[in-house]
Amino acid sequence: MHATMMNFPLTTNHLLDRAAQLFPEVEVVSQAPDKSLRRHTYADLRRRSRALAKGLLDAGLQKGDRVATLMWNHHAHMEVYFGVPMAGGIYHTLNLRLSPEDLGHIVQDAGDRYLVIDDVLLPLLAKFGGELPFEKVFVVRWTPAELPDTLTGEGGKGADFESLIEAGSAELDGWQSPPVDENDPIGMCYTSGTTGRPKGVVYSHRATILHSFASALPDSLNLSISDCLCPVVPMFHVNAWGLPFTATMVGAKQVHPGPHLAPDALLDLYAKEKVTVSAGVPTIWMGIMKLVGANPDKWALQPGLRMVVGGSAAPESMIDTMDQMGMTVIHAWGMTETTPLGSVSRLRPHQLELPKEEQLKIRARQGTPPPFVEMRIVDDEGREVAWDGVHMGELQVRGPWIAGSYHGGVDAQDKWTEDGWFRTGDVVTMNAEGSMQITDRTKDLVKSGGEWISSVALENALMGHPDVAEAAVVAVPHPKWSERPVAVVVAKEGKTLDDAALTAYLAERFERWWLPEGYAHREQIPRGATGKFLKRTLRQELAGWFANAEG
Amino acid sequence: MHATMMNFPLTTNHLLDRAAQLFPEVEVVSQAPDKSLRRHTYADLRRRSRALAKGLLDAGLQKGDRVATLMWNHHAHMEVYFGVPMAGGIYHTLNLRLSPEDLGHIVQDAGDRYLVIDDVLLPLLAKFGGELPFEKVFVVRWTPAELPDTLTGEGGKGADFESLIEAGSAELDGWQSPPVDENDPIGMCYTSGTTGRPKGVVYSHRATILHSFASALPDSLNLSISDCLCPVVPMFHVNAWGLPFTATMVGAKQVHPGPHLAPDALLDLYAKEKVTVSAGVPTIWMGIMKLVGANPDKWALQPGLRMVVGGSAAPESMIDTMDQMGMTVIHAWGMTETTPLGSVSRLRPHQLELPKEEQLKIRARQGTPPPFVEMRIVDDEGREVAWDGVHMGELQVRGPWIAGSYHGGVDAQDKWTEDGWFRTGDVVTMNAEGSMQITDRTKDLVKSGGEWISSVALENALMGHPDVAEAAVVAVPHPKWSERPVAVVVAKEGKTLDDAALTAYLAERFERWWLPEGYAHREQIPRGATGKFLKRTLRQELAGWFANAEG
Repeated sequence: MHATMMNFPLTTNHLLDRAAQLFPEVEVVSQAPDKSLRRHTYADLRRRSRALAKGLLDAGLQKGDRVATLMWNHHAHMEVYFGVPMAGGIYHTLNLRLSPEDLGHIVQDAGDRYLVIDDVLLPLLAKFGGELPFEKVFVVRWTPAELPDTLTGEGGKGADFESLIEAGSAELDGWQSPPVDENDPIGMCYTSGTTGRPKGVVYSHRATILHSFASALPDSLNLSISDCLCPVVPMFHVNAWGLPFTATMVGAKQVHPGPHLAPDALLDLYAKEKVTVSAGVPTIWMGIMKLVGANPDKWALQPGLRMVVGGSAAPESMIDTMDQMGMTVIHAWGMTETTPLGSVSRLRPHQLELPKEEQLKIRARQGTPPPFVEMRIVDDEGREVAWDGVHMGELQVRGPWIAGSYHGGVDAQDKWTEDGWFRTGDVVTMNAEGSMQITDRTKDLVKSGGEWISSVALENALMGHPDVAEAAVVAVPHPKWSERPVAVVVAKEGKTLDDAALTAYLAERFERWWLPEGYAHREQIPRGATGKFLKRTLRQELAGWFANAEG
Repeated sequence: MHATMMNFPLTTNHLLDRAAQLFPEVEVVSQAPDKSLRRHTYADLRRRSRALAKGLLDAGLQKGDRVATLMWNHHAHMEVYFGVPMAGGIYHTLNLRLSPEDLGHIVQDAGDRYLVIDDVLLPLLAKFGGELPFEKVFVVRWTPAELPDTLTGEGGKGADFESLIEAGSAELDGWQSPPVDENDPIGMCYTSGTTGRPKGVVYSHRATILHSFASALPDSLNLSISDCLCPVVPMFHVNAWGLPFTATMVGAKQVHPGPHLAPDALLDLYAKEKVTVSAGVPTIWMGIMKLVGANPDKWALQPGLRMVVGGSAAPESMIDTMDQMGMTVIHAWGMTETTPLGSVSRLRPHQLELPKEEQLKIRARQGTPPPFVEMRIVDDEGREVAWDGVHMGELQVRGPWIAGSYHGGVDAQDKWTEDGWFRTGDVVTMNAEGSMQITDRTKDLVKSGGEWISSVALENALMGHPDVAEAAVVAVPHPKWSERPVAVVVAKEGKTLDDAALTAYLAERFERWWLPEGYAHREQIPRGATGKFLKRTLRQELAGWFANAEG
């Protein structure tokens, strides 16, 4: 006996058709470099995405061709998200904060044929050097400035994005896009490459749709048509965590900040467009909190404005402070390889009666996987570790939106177990209710005297100290203990930090042997392209810290 | 280039594993016939479902075997929902309100091998007559009464459900259920068969999972771990609208009413178990409203208790009255062939400022399809009708949880268009925002208390009466049952028709609740150009038939 259900594919085309048909007037707002706002509707978005698809096909795009992007968050980037896969192509979001060398490697590895780029980002392209590795460069115009000769001159590869849309708009009514399979690729994104060269992850229609369903659930981000979403997380970071797709699925209004990610610009935008949910890394929220703290009545924010925090752990102090400012942190965890939603930390009904400190502890965990993400913890010897909130091990995950390999079959087989689970590289504990907590990255653990110390736990505690602006804790080689933790600290403006006082502060929270062996005082902590601390750099700088210590 | 995502199937096994791992202590409560409550947890549910699967396999279940159920809503029915597909079998929910003839036909058509039955429903089995069409009958014991000799005597087919679970429990730890494909069938349900014999719809793992995602969304039923769900809709009606699966996916507490569907029993249960969301047909809510209206302070219900109304249209007055009683109607539409969620009517943000009467009008529409249900309206000549809220046409739907055929390839090809859309048989309008409203039905059906009555079957029987010249049966709005059948009859020349005699005549052929509520005697029945009865005209003429009837 067979099931009698229709064979109906899960594709992003459906999301666009649905939004244009059911929510034709709902807006997609884009902030331009001059801070003016471009307003489109979902009906516009569908029309323009279809025109882009048809324009690309007319221009020669073949099934499977890659179209790279160097763009901020805005409507044109969304049109690429939908239009390129509709044409059978694959968009490839380039991280504009990477070095030209890394970008060059990635473009070559992906075999990108076309590039779509914001005109304000053209200076980046100039740094590539040599002949441009693209057949054609489509420029999204935001400013009246002339395009460089290299693009527009004799043999120049430049073309106007808007002209492509216009060309595709001819005879668009009733045009049928090519058939697609739900397992067809739609886009790709490279990992940050902290452990070797960046590696390509290729997302499918199916993975994106299932991820959107899981993300919108009440116990995940609770996204609905009543929401106005502002993704601060760049669209070149794991598809802005998939949020442009999820918001389109549910018909939520979208507000894209363009290049303006400074706290005051974001707060202006939140207030003006009545944003109800935003998403970004802790660094962004640090700036927001500082500014709202200094100007508590300046911005009329939506009550309970939800702030999705990911990319790095949200410390308890951040969750607490944002609560007091009337914002609600939703703490989530994920990776490029997990599309990215891997877990969300939300209070369960029976936890609502707990004291506030207990609730903060729960919310600062990385939380519970959504439906169809499966987790297990495995120790050094490959044995599964109990979910008791105490025992640590490597987090391994699997599910329909988890990567099973990298593009090009690159040699990274240690990233997957023999039985098909993805090895996250995070060392975690899991409690009996399936709430996961990252204690460290495998490579960032401090192994002192044969015992693990969590640098993340120390960092979070230090960042809760009233005079500390930022803190990073790294493992430094030690003649006696193999490794010992050293804390790099940045004082808040006008404050000074005293080592003994910091140690006394930490001693209330940790075992003696966990306490940092020393403190390096800095003006700032070096960060990588994605805003994460460059711990590797710090470890190199501090490698000699104990060189003269007694064994 | 290929997508690099894992190939991970969408199966109900995952839902069970997830619930037991992440929400092990959350309860599944079942009301027994004596109104005592059996309490299980999701951890119990998984253990027992796995034991059932293993027990069935040990007992000889083969891949694809059908296991029929004659059961109320409770944990054992859920164990069959999960355990039978886990073993590779297909559960088949029998509607215990059907006639023995229809049940016999359906059991034969489905080729059911086993039956699981509540002991309190054994009298139904006795009506089957002849040899039982099952190889084995597993009885769920709720009462201490002895089982009938026919089951337990020499050659009896009876066995104890609990013994099956016990047998499967041996060496269950680490037992791996057989691999399943997401397109494998899991369960089947027959349509009411208004236009011919009942037809089987076979649900797959994939359809059920996608339906669960769509149902739980904030803009659908908004189901979360904070909920306590009580499905009043029987588990033999389209899987209780899929709610036992959806609730398991999100880890919501479940409370099953067993055989006690009377308003006072339900209200007692809601209050005792702190139910936050319930689901059923309008007839159920009529009774609830009447009782709460008469005893406004008797039951301490959860604030904003959501009442999912489906199966028949929720009239504005019902939505309004329940609002005033502190309950919130969620009006939904669907069919056996749509798993069933096809649309939900909820207010959009910009509609929240409308006057109450306008809001009620919107909420009384059938509403908007969830993601991945596609709708179109087609007129008599096969042309698509504009979404203008005025023009009518037949509603056609498609999507991954919409039936594409019936079991056994029965001849019902007029139910699908050549381009693969399912023809619902409902005549609807759609407004510019994609909110659907049913105005009529192409086939004339009577929906009484959530169950279908075939007017055609009644007409045919009446016209077989020696004194009847013509008969038409139409659905007339009824305050309690939503609709009841009224028969329009024309006597043969020289004859007179007596209502009681007609009823007695029909009572030999139909269940009591099918019998017409009244008879309108006419000289002739109005006919259209093609000679068909003008049922719409009759419905209009008879609309006030029950205006003075008690609810």
